[in-house]
Amino acid sequence: MKAIILFGHGARDARWREPFDRLAQLWQEQHPSTPVQLAFLELMQPSLEEAVTTLAAKGATDLTIVPVFFGQGGHLRNDFPVLLEECRGKFPNMTLSATPAVGEDLAVLQAIVDFGARAL
Amino acid sequence: MKAIILFGHGARDARWREPFDRLAQLWQEQHPSTPVQLAFLELMQPSLEEAVTTLAAKGATDLTIVPVFFGQGGHLRNDFPVLLEECRGKFPNMTLSATPAVGEDLAVLQAIVDFGARAL
Repeated sequence: MKAIILFGHGARDARWREPFDRLAQLWQEQHPSTPVQLAFLELMQPSLEEAVTTLAAKGATDLTIVPVFFGQGGHLRNDFPVLLEECRGKFPNMTLSATPAVGEDLAVLQAIVDFGARAL
Repeated sequence: MKAIILFGHGARDARWREPFDRLAQLWQEQHPSTPVQLAFLELMQPSLEEAVTTLAAKGATDLTIVPVFFGQGGHLRNDFPVLLEECRGKFPNMTLSATPAVGEDLAVLQAIVDFGARAL
């Protein structure tokens, strides 16, 4: 079974995660047969490994991790691959793949441009 | 004259800003009569004040600042309003307004959901 993890940075302020909760809710409404979990690099729970564990318990075997970051900076180029490899080591029977950061997607950038245009 | 500032967090890794440069380029292609500047909270230049100064020199009088952040955490709820007030004090003849974070926009979230769906 396929599943998806939306992987964000995390923050001290609990309100920071609201758009992530909304994202997961949108995903589940629109893709009810593909379980979703949020995961955070730091300061918020669950961790990537905890999210993979949750999805493994639901029977997921084929996991796509979407980094909900704008840029591919040090967190995604250095920290994230280490976490991903650790998860692959702990879940050898799962296929774990990762997309580029969502900020690399032209449609995401266009939605931001359109948001700005509406605000002028 | 109206103008727009796309305000991001900033990062140590120079590659992190690539989507922001792409955003500004998209904006300028699609809205050539509305100047755009990037600005960063920390670790990258220009600062918000530097970006406002640049746009003031171009004749902008009515500035919309779009926080290119997912969540409204401490940076946007505490740090950003202070910077905004400082800029208002230094540029009393300009109108400076700010939108919510782009992560509050449903179309931005939907673009992220669609990006994930294409990757499965």
